Amino acid sequence: MNIDQYMTDLGRRARVASRAMARASTAAKNAALVAVATAIERERETLKAANARDLARAREKGHDAAFIDRLTLSDKALNTMVEGLRQVASLADPIGEISGLKFRPTGIQVGQMRVPLGVIGIIYESRPNVTIDAAALCLKSGNATILRGGSEALECNTALAKLIGEGLQAAALPQDAVQVVETADRAAVGKLITMTEFVDVIVPRGGKSLIARLMEESRVPMIKHLDGICHVYVDDRADLAKAAAICDNAKTHRYGTCNTMETLLVARGIASEALPLLARAFQAKDVELRVDAESRAVLEAAHIGSLVDATEADWSTEYLAPVLAVKIVGDMDEAIEHINAYGSHHTDAIVTEDHDRAMRFLREVDSASVMVNASTRFADGFEFGLGAEIGISNDKLHARGPVGLEGLTSLKYVVLGHGEVRQ
Amino acid sequence: MNIDQYMTDLGRRARVASRAMARASTAAKNAALVAVATAIERERETLKAANARDLARAREKGHDAAFIDRLTLSDKALNTMVEGLRQVASLADPIGEISGLKFRPTGIQVGQMRVPLGVIGIIYESRPNVTIDAAALCLKSGNATILRGGSEALECNTALAKLIGEGLQAAALPQDAVQVVETADRAAVGKLITMTEFVDVIVPRGGKSLIARLMEESRVPMIKHLDGICHVYVDDRADLAKAAAICDNAKTHRYGTCNTMETLLVARGIASEALPLLARAFQAKDVELRVDAESRAVLEAAHIGSLVDATEADWSTEYLAPVLAVKIVGDMDEAIEHINAYGSHHTDAIVTEDHDRAMRFLREVDSASVMVNASTRFADGFEFGLGAEIGISNDKLHARGPVGLEGLTSLKYVVLGHGEVRQ
Repeated sequence: MNIDQYMTDLGRRARVASRAMARASTAAKNAALVAVATAIERERETLKAANARDLARAREKGHDAAFIDRLTLSDKALNTMVEGLRQVASLADPIGEISGLKFRPTGIQVGQMRVPLGVIGIIYESRPNVTIDAAALCLKSGNATILRGGSEALECNTALAKLIGEGLQAAALPQDAVQVVETADRAAVGKLITMTEFVDVIVPRGGKSLIARLMEESRVPMIKHLDGICHVYVDDRADLAKAAAICDNAKTHRYGTCNTMETLLVARGIASEALPLLARAFQAKDVELRVDAESRAVLEAAHIGSLVDATEADWSTEYLAPVLAVKIVGDMDEAIEHINAYGSHHTDAIVTEDHDRAMRFLREVDSASVMVNASTRFADGFEFGLGAEIGISNDKLHARGPVGLEGLTSLKYVVLGHGEVRQ
Repeated sequence: MNIDQYMTDLGRRARVASRAMARASTAAKNAALVAVATAIERERETLKAANARDLARAREKGHDAAFIDRLTLSDKALNTMVEGLRQVASLADPIGEISGLKFRPTGIQVGQMRVPLGVIGIIYESRPNVTIDAAALCLKSGNATILRGGSEALECNTALAKLIGEGLQAAALPQDAVQVVETADRAAVGKLITMTEFVDVIVPRGGKSLIARLMEESRVPMIKHLDGICHVYVDDRADLAKAAAICDNAKTHRYGTCNTMETLLVARGIASEALPLLARAFQAKDVELRVDAESRAVLEAAHIGSLVDATEADWSTEYLAPVLAVKIVGDMDEAIEHINAYGSHHTDAIVTEDHDRAMRFLREVDSASVMVNASTRFADGFEFGLGAEIGISNDKLHARGPVGLEGLTSLKYVVLGHGEVRQ
């Protein structure tokens, strides 16, 4: 197989399909989504059989239990897919909305129309549910998609793609609107992320090493985040009960998510009161504390031991584990400096009762999501009310923070005239 | 001079200044802009003397008249700069606006806050007015700027930078908020477009070869367009008087601008009526017509000669000259196909009285600005009501079309809580 030619062909067909998708009616797109849901319910056993073949191969190759778990298409996962498809069908169609249409002194009317981006490439690892989630969001937002899942999930993804094709056909939409790369050859990814003439944006879904590699090589813009080094800053005007609840939730609700707190910053003025309280709660849940010298002194004075000395590297580490870096800062300005310097511009929160500080923190912390008196765990498309999430972006251009349907669209200017010319 | 170290230092200082700019008050930013305007008026002769030294050097090097013209800082250019600064000061400050703040079922409020991008690199050629225009827009939008003008304008740009610094200082804003690269070494550009840790976006202003080179090498995202291959499609339901006025204006109002029509598409059903009319008007203004075979037949039947046969290359050429490619298409679908395939996604217009076709054209033409019954020459920040323009973007991500202050900002999510945690 000539990968270059194969991918070019996929790209060309996606581009053609994207034109039809851009003008597809809301009813047709919704009908396709519902038809895919119905097909998945009908073909439940076929899908599980395809998944079983993927799983057998993965076990043969010696993949670990966590990998097998992610690869497994359980009944629960299938139900979630079906539910997700119906939910995306029920979301408002973002396409075609014209906003801000205003008359200009010349007589023309100028506004902005929301339109699809065109062709979206999704690169992901072993979770087969991404195939359906990503396809559903791209379809609803009027885009064509090229899906490149992990090679270990190929049988399952191919089976899912067949059902997506059936749904598209049932709604008289082009089957090329969702294509799955049906080769395990890694060169296919290299081509996908460089064929700028056919692909408008890449959404990578996966671990940090995948994203880092794609960032190096991609010539197509990406909607992505590399890591989530999220902070909670407990201000000296914090309500201690709120601080305790938020810090606990931000760190221990789930250890492995990108919006989990990795560094706790505490204002010097409240440290001797707040830090022992917070530290005891973390240690009760077996969270390892990596502390700066001043935090160690405060905690040891309160008879709290089992502390690890933080190194410079800890301030910029995403643990994704029951480990927390802890540092005392002089004031909010120092906290903001620290967050902007060491963080990953993902999600950061302040706990304070002081209005001016709350507003300054919101404005000056240079992150995609900035919060006052709320857990960083809320940084999520569903929690933010987007209805769905294709990913989270730490970049400042285009979509920033959790990305829903709107992030898969673009605004173009539209001008309505009556024969006007420029003077 | 160690260029790498020099640029890194510039970048680091810009990043620090960007934090102060992000929290600068509207009053301080406006005061700085007005102070720069006053300083330019006062130092008019100093600036002209600096420019005279640049001009002498450029003449010595044998640059042509057009180049010298662009480099010249005339009294008119100085007046325009001063006026531009005062106008940007009078524009609404886009920074800090919070939109869409809504309560979620969990009790948190989620909205989006408009914030500066951070550090913007401007790379331009010989026009010294860009120094002031770009600095003014970046300053007003709360960004720090690194300006890299053409080496031929170095004396003038350095003199302007001194006055900008004076204005910043008068408003108690950091002087590093606007820095000029004071070396003619080309390696400085190479560093500027790759130091992603210090520069958030690059805005190139200049000819196609500059932009193309930067596109190849830049690791920092760019707000840019490569070329403007703009179309007017005269539908068979067009009003002929509107078609004549729009086509004339779109082509002949100015030949060298990016929103000038380069290809005229005419529907077969109206060609024998419309094409001779339009062609005679163009030929009366010495516009060379490069026509497809069918257009030639129609025009020759109307006794119109002096036609050049169009080649495939003509459909994707930006002439920037009194030359026009002309083609007959079967219908609007063929016109849209042609525009999407051969155009540059900049600005395209339809002339039609048919409502459904007008709306379909708006939706399906994949360009930054799409127009009905208006001249493509309207694609401009001032004409669109943005108040100012830093450039035009043909990209679909982030800003698309004419880019004003808003294009130099980003939306981050803000969450206002009262101690909420995620369930």
